[in-house]
Amino acid sequence: MKSKKINLYEQVADTIARLINQGTFQPGDRVPSIRALSRQMHVSIATVMEAYRCLEDRELIEARPQSGYYVRRLYQHTLIEPAPSTPGKSPTTVSVDELVRMVMQDSRNQNLVPLGAAVPNPENLPVGKLNRILASVVRRKGAQSISYEMSAGFEPLRVQIARRLLSAGCALNPREILITSGCQEAVTLSLMAICRPGDTVAIESPTYFNHLQTLEVLRLKAIEIPTHPRYGISLEALGVLLKKNRIRACLLIPNFSNPLGSLMPDDRKKALVEMLTHYDVPLIEDDIYGDIGFSQERPRVVKAFDQKGLVLLCSSFSKTLAPGYRIGWVSPGRFQTEAERLKSACTIATATAPQMAIAEFLTNGGYDHHLRKIRRIYMRQIWLMTQAVSKFFPQGTKVTRPAGGFVLWVELPEHVNSLKLYELSLKAGITIAPGPIFSVRQGYPNYVRLNAAFWSDKIEKAIATLGRFAEGMAS
Amino acid sequence: MKSKKINLYEQVADTIARLINQGTFQPGDRVPSIRALSRQMHVSIATVMEAYRCLEDRELIEARPQSGYYVRRLYQHTLIEPAPSTPGKSPTTVSVDELVRMVMQDSRNQNLVPLGAAVPNPENLPVGKLNRILASVVRRKGAQSISYEMSAGFEPLRVQIARRLLSAGCALNPREILITSGCQEAVTLSLMAICRPGDTVAIESPTYFNHLQTLEVLRLKAIEIPTHPRYGISLEALGVLLKKNRIRACLLIPNFSNPLGSLMPDDRKKALVEMLTHYDVPLIEDDIYGDIGFSQERPRVVKAFDQKGLVLLCSSFSKTLAPGYRIGWVSPGRFQTEAERLKSACTIATATAPQMAIAEFLTNGGYDHHLRKIRRIYMRQIWLMTQAVSKFFPQGTKVTRPAGGFVLWVELPEHVNSLKLYELSLKAGITIAPGPIFSVRQGYPNYVRLNAAFWSDKIEKAIATLGRFAEGMAS
Repeated sequence: MKSKKINLYEQVADTIARLINQGTFQPGDRVPSIRALSRQMHVSIATVMEAYRCLEDRELIEARPQSGYYVRRLYQHTLIEPAPSTPGKSPTTVSVDELVRMVMQDSRNQNLVPLGAAVPNPENLPVGKLNRILASVVRRKGAQSISYEMSAGFEPLRVQIARRLLSAGCALNPREILITSGCQEAVTLSLMAICRPGDTVAIESPTYFNHLQTLEVLRLKAIEIPTHPRYGISLEALGVLLKKNRIRACLLIPNFSNPLGSLMPDDRKKALVEMLTHYDVPLIEDDIYGDIGFSQERPRVVKAFDQKGLVLLCSSFSKTLAPGYRIGWVSPGRFQTEAERLKSACTIATATAPQMAIAEFLTNGGYDHHLRKIRRIYMRQIWLMTQAVSKFFPQGTKVTRPAGGFVLWVELPEHVNSLKLYELSLKAGITIAPGPIFSVRQGYPNYVRLNAAFWSDKIEKAIATLGRFAEGMAS
Repeated sequence: MKSKKINLYEQVADTIARLINQGTFQPGDRVPSIRALSRQMHVSIATVMEAYRCLEDRELIEARPQSGYYVRRLYQHTLIEPAPSTPGKSPTTVSVDELVRMVMQDSRNQNLVPLGAAVPNPENLPVGKLNRILASVVRRKGAQSISYEMSAGFEPLRVQIARRLLSAGCALNPREILITSGCQEAVTLSLMAICRPGDTVAIESPTYFNHLQTLEVLRLKAIEIPTHPRYGISLEALGVLLKKNRIRACLLIPNFSNPLGSLMPDDRKKALVEMLTHYDVPLIEDDIYGDIGFSQERPRVVKAFDQKGLVLLCSSFSKTLAPGYRIGWVSPGRFQTEAERLKSACTIATATAPQMAIAEFLTNGGYDHHLRKIRRIYMRQIWLMTQAVSKFFPQGTKVTRPAGGFVLWVELPEHVNSLKLYELSLKAGITIAPGPIFSVRQGYPNYVRLNAAFWSDKIEKAIATLGRFAEGMAS
């Protein structure tokens, strides 16, 4: 998937931006000289100059006369990352309240500043192109476009997905892929295929609130695994859980987890599969953000290391193309038959026309080009939002350094109550996602997740407003 | 919904056709003279003449010189209806096998004669119009068309559905309607909202095989209620079950049941609600065929008699507009909150663009006109297929006289094995739905369901082939 079409200077710029983003170069640090970087990266002086010009445009670095280029220092203090989480150790009956629905519904209210739900900015999605493809494909396909599709899904779409998975380290037969109504149905069917009510599922802490809601409606228990904001779950902690507790399945977001943005390194992915294989515990792998990392290299999925069909890989096009098309998929490994039965029994099949449109977009629509574009946008906006948080939030605030996706997880000083902050900000026309909805036991009372898919002066002002509210609580 | 746009003579023709179809006038019977009918129905002589010409076109009646008009007698013997069913009396763990999936998959194989799955004939659906509306609506709505819709669904669609429900006897607030991925998801969410694994659900016998599959994957037990081929379930039998067994819910198709085509009369609907209210047992009412009855009058739904929010009314546009759009809905009564939570947790929301297109079609697309058209087509084809079955199937075959929908339920002589018939006919390029998949205990070994949504010489030949195979088994 590493494409040659992207300009070399952009590659260089992205690499440096990533290093800045991950804290390798901190605000105020001098980045390598043009000459040094040219040597290190085996590119021309002109290319590095172009790259640095590009990073200046992105407001990431600034030139200081006679001295070189520096990471911009726009704010008073440097934010550190939150510590790895330390959730409780016993299974808990999931109870996610009304808040989740409110945060989701807020996202459709165009009068609110959209820092809550992790919805992409439609301005960065190929709305017109996709809808033109939809119109054209239904005209061409006629009766087929309004007829039932197979439960397993539209064959050409499954072929495209299988092809793309090569870059994630998986060589799958299209028949091993099942199209679903979004990633959420993929996860739901996976849980239903594996678990019985009362079973315990191991999850990251914090984790995506809709997963908690799904566990709740399926009457499953959740046990939270301590999770590092940069490298994902603690394998040591999982090992202890697997030995002591009866864990029926794991449900994880190893690539750019929501809300942490963490990325499990390959060696840990491999070790995870080995551990789960030893205990014969399936992994439901949510890879919905896998395509939008900040690195040129598409990270591998955990399933790439799976020899036993133990990993059920789930994803969708909701973060990259069209949330409203509701097109996701699962490659259910050894649970294929059961997943297909469930799909057929629960919704018969996924809507036909959106499947056709996405298949066509993947084939001829320039998906890779589009991904490169939105990756750069999200990386930049994560950076801008980090700066704004740093500038406006109370002293002592910590923030993640996501390796992909478009959300930030922010730890405020202990006396800031994020549920109150949610209420206050809603009154001020801003929606955020308060920490407690990311946890089974409604932990993280002083955390918020911010959606960085949108950026504008208005957003920056909203961050300032949030900061003011938080300061008010802190005092 | 009774429209004044329809021609008077067509109304008269439809009335007579219905009487013929229901057996009030049997093949060979003389229908009322033109003069007599003119008096009886308070219409002009010319109108009756036009109506009879129309019925001749439909091959329902024929003129005999100097004698009058007669119901056409194209075949040797008149078929009687199957008797009311007499299923066993104890709850059974549902086990519906691979056959269901095969029958469903068969329906997408264009090389097979489609007598199996109850799919509509795309030639009778407004494919071009609907897809033009889809193209136009996504162009107009832009970003909204690719964004997440509310879990509860697209507001204008809910408004249209609420308006249409007036003709079914329900005055609902659009907020009481939840859009789903087809009727199947509506039923699934309803079952999940009410039942826990191991609970028992009372169903018609025979009933729609996908309902059995849904009960199976949700690990629910089913108990079958004896069902009359014309009037639906036996209330007496249900009363006994409610008294003796712990029934958690009923799942019924009161209007034009699948596969029987039975229609519960209003007084029985009312009595059903009273009985269920007494025992506080919810009813999941599948009304997917409600719009395509053979009478001018749209039948009321059971929910019309419900005062306590005990009825969860489910339907979709899969039989009338576009199965592949996967747009259904549920009005969950007192289970509204739980159903919305489930919808949000299982699939977040239904695809946006198909909702917008259906809403637009219901508003401006001439849905009522379209319904009148397909009702007449289905009534005619049910009649033609009944004739063909009568002509080609073994002596002793019985067949239902559906009051709506587009399927026939056929009872063959006892020694005909419908599973073998399914296998044989599949080899001959014909797919049918064998009786055992319509029953928990795989009863109905000598029954088949025939889809009458298609009609052509090829279909008639296929019926002849089936008849030959059945004759072969009978001998």
